Amino acid sequence: MPEEVILQAQRELPDWDGQGFSLLETPFSGVKFKRLLGRTRDTLRELLKIPDHFHILFMHGGASAQFSLVPLNLLGDSKCAAYVDSGYWSRKAIHEAHRYCQVEHAAIAEDYIHTSTNTAYCHITSNETADGLQLSLALKASTPLIVDMTSDFLVRPIDFEPIGLIYAGAQKNIGPAGLTIVIVRDDLLGRAHALTPTVLNYTYQVEAGSLVNTPLTYSIYLANLVFQWIGHQGGITSMAKRSQTRSAMIYDVIDASEGFYRCDIPPDQRSRMNLCFKLPDEPLTQLFIDHAAWSGLVNLKGHVQKGGIRASLYNAMPDAGVVALADFMHRFRKQYADL
Amino acid sequence: MPEEVILQAQRELPDWDGQGFSLLETPFSGVKFKRLLGRTRDTLRELLKIPDHFHILFMHGGASAQFSLVPLNLLGDSKCAAYVDSGYWSRKAIHEAHRYCQVEHAAIAEDYIHTSTNTAYCHITSNETADGLQLSLALKASTPLIVDMTSDFLVRPIDFEPIGLIYAGAQKNIGPAGLTIVIVRDDLLGRAHALTPTVLNYTYQVEAGSLVNTPLTYSIYLANLVFQWIGHQGGITSMAKRSQTRSAMIYDVIDASEGFYRCDIPPDQRSRMNLCFKLPDEPLTQLFIDHAAWSGLVNLKGHVQKGGIRASLYNAMPDAGVVALADFMHRFRKQYADL
Repeated sequence: MPEEVILQAQRELPDWDGQGFSLLETPFSGVKFKRLLGRTRDTLRELLKIPDHFHILFMHGGASAQFSLVPLNLLGDSKCAAYVDSGYWSRKAIHEAHRYCQVEHAAIAEDYIHTSTNTAYCHITSNETADGLQLSLALKASTPLIVDMTSDFLVRPIDFEPIGLIYAGAQKNIGPAGLTIVIVRDDLLGRAHALTPTVLNYTYQVEAGSLVNTPLTYSIYLANLVFQWIGHQGGITSMAKRSQTRSAMIYDVIDASEGFYRCDIPPDQRSRMNLCFKLPDEPLTQLFIDHAAWSGLVNLKGHVQKGGIRASLYNAMPDAGVVALADFMHRFRKQYADL
Repeated sequence: MPEEVILQAQRELPDWDGQGFSLLETPFSGVKFKRLLGRTRDTLRELLKIPDHFHILFMHGGASAQFSLVPLNLLGDSKCAAYVDSGYWSRKAIHEAHRYCQVEHAAIAEDYIHTSTNTAYCHITSNETADGLQLSLALKASTPLIVDMTSDFLVRPIDFEPIGLIYAGAQKNIGPAGLTIVIVRDDLLGRAHALTPTVLNYTYQVEAGSLVNTPLTYSIYLANLVFQWIGHQGGITSMAKRSQTRSAMIYDVIDASEGFYRCDIPPDQRSRMNLCFKLPDEPLTQLFIDHAAWSGLVNLKGHVQKGGIRASLYNAMPDAGVVALADFMHRFRKQYADL
C-alpha cells in the first residue's frame, strides 16, 4: 500500500472523521459508514469508468472464494462453463469449477475466445502472478467473460463490453487481504444455485448494497484511501503508463543480459506486475536473493512451485524501488556473469 | 476495542515487528506471519482452555456466513438439524438453515435440550444482542451443540463437554468485522456437502491451518493483541466477573426505578452484554438518547426492530463508561419520572 495511505490510516486509527472513536469500532449501519461506503463505490466507478448496468459489490472471502461463488451464482440452468488455462491461478479456478459443472477448456485465438453454445460464461485470469504472464484485455468471447483481476486490478483500463463479471481480491493493489471487489453485469443476477449461502449470493448483496451482513468496514475504508490516491496520481491511465515504463526497465535489463537473466514468457504476454525470470543456476539464484535483501530489495523469491526470481511491481511500489532493482541486476550480472 | 490495543496498532501500523513495512503488506506465507498466526491460536486456546480435540480456525465471511456453513459442513447424511429460537439472531440462523435441511424447533427444559434421534446437531445463539437475552452455558443436549457466540465470546468460561462447534464473528469482543473464529470438534469433520466452497470447508481449513487461502492477516494481528490484553486483565474469569458486576450496576438502576425503566427479560436470562430496556413512552426514549449523547454516551438506541434502549457493555468498554451510564440513568429518572 502507498506510504501516504498508511500514514493517513495511522493518523486516523484512534479517531476517524472527528467522531471520537476508531473506524474499527464504527457500526456499519450508521450514517457515517454508509456515506463512506457510497463514496468508495462512486470513486471506483469513476476510476474504472464502470457502466451503470454493472453493480459494484464489496464482499468477504478473498478471490479464492470466488472460484466457487462464480459457478454457484452464474451457472443457472447451464451445466457447463469455459475456462482459459493460462497458469497457476487459472488452474486453481478450474479445479474448483469441476466441483460445480463440466469445464470446457477454451483457447484464445487472435484475441477471440470461442466457446460452445451451452456454456454459461468464460473465465480468464488476466494476470498470472506465479507464471509472470498477463493476458490482453482486448479479448472478445461468444459468452460473458468472467475475469479474475486480483493481481492487475486498477493497473489498466477495462473495456466492459465483453465483460460479465470481474472479481479482485484486495491484497495486491487495493488494501488488506479479505476484501473482494465484485463487479457484475445486471443481467447475470438471479440465477444462483439454491444452496448458495445468502451472504455470498450476488443478487442479495446487490439488493442490499453489500450490506446483507456486516461488511469489511476497515478494509473498505483503506480501499477508499487507495482509490483516492490513484485518482491523485492521475487515475488508471497513469497507473497503466507507469507500470509499462517500470516493467520495461526490468525486462530491458533481462533482454540485454546475454542470457544471464532468462524470461521464458513471449514478450507480448509478459506481465507488467509480476516479472518472473531465471538465473543460470540455483546457487546464483540464492545468491541473487541474498544480495538483494542486503540492498533492501525483499520478496524476490519466485513462487514456491516455479522457483527463480519474481519481482512484483504493484501500484504502491515506489519508482525508486524499481530503479534500484534494475541497477542491482546490472551490478549483480557484472560481478557474476563470467564466473 | 481496548484503547491500549488501538494505540499499539497505531504505533505499529507503518512498521510491524521491525521488518520495515506494515503488517498490512506482510505476505501470509512468510515465517513472520505464520508465527503470529500460531501465537494467536495458542493464546486463544489457553484463554478459553480449549481441549486438544477441538480445532481453531480463522475464517472469512462473518457470523452470518456460518448460518449457511454450519449446515453445509455438518449435516452429512442427516436431513435434519435442531435449532433453539431465542430471538432475532437465532431466527436468522433458522431462516438460513431451512435452505439446507429440515429444522426441528428445540426447547430448553431445565438446562437440557432434547432433540430427535436423526438431528445432526442442535444450534443455539448464546447471547441475543437485539433482545437482550443470554442463555446459560450449563446446557446439555442429546446431540452436539453448535453455538453462535459472536456477541459473548471471551466473556465467560466455556464447558466444552456438550459442544460440537462454536463460531464468533470478530466485531463484538475481538476485533474488526470480517474475521470469524470457528472452534470445531475433531469428529465432526469430513462430512461437508459436495458443493461447499473449498475455502469455506472446515475440514480443508483444519488440514491447512486456516491457510487454504489468504487469511485476514490484519484482523488476526488485531485479534492477537486483544487476546493478549484479555490475558493481562486476568483472563476469561476476570472478564466474566467484570461483566457480571457491570451489568448488575445497570440492572439495579432499572429494577429500583419503580417502573420508569422496564426490562421484560426474566432476571436469569438477562444479557450481561446487551442490556435492553424501555422507557414509559417514545418521546422520553428519544430524549434519553439525545441527553445521553450530550453526556458523551453514544450508541444507546435499541435494535431497529425492537426500539427502546440498548446498552452494550462489550469487554473493551471502560468501567468508567458503565458508571457514567448508571449515574446518567439516575439523574434522568429524577428529572423526568414525575412529568
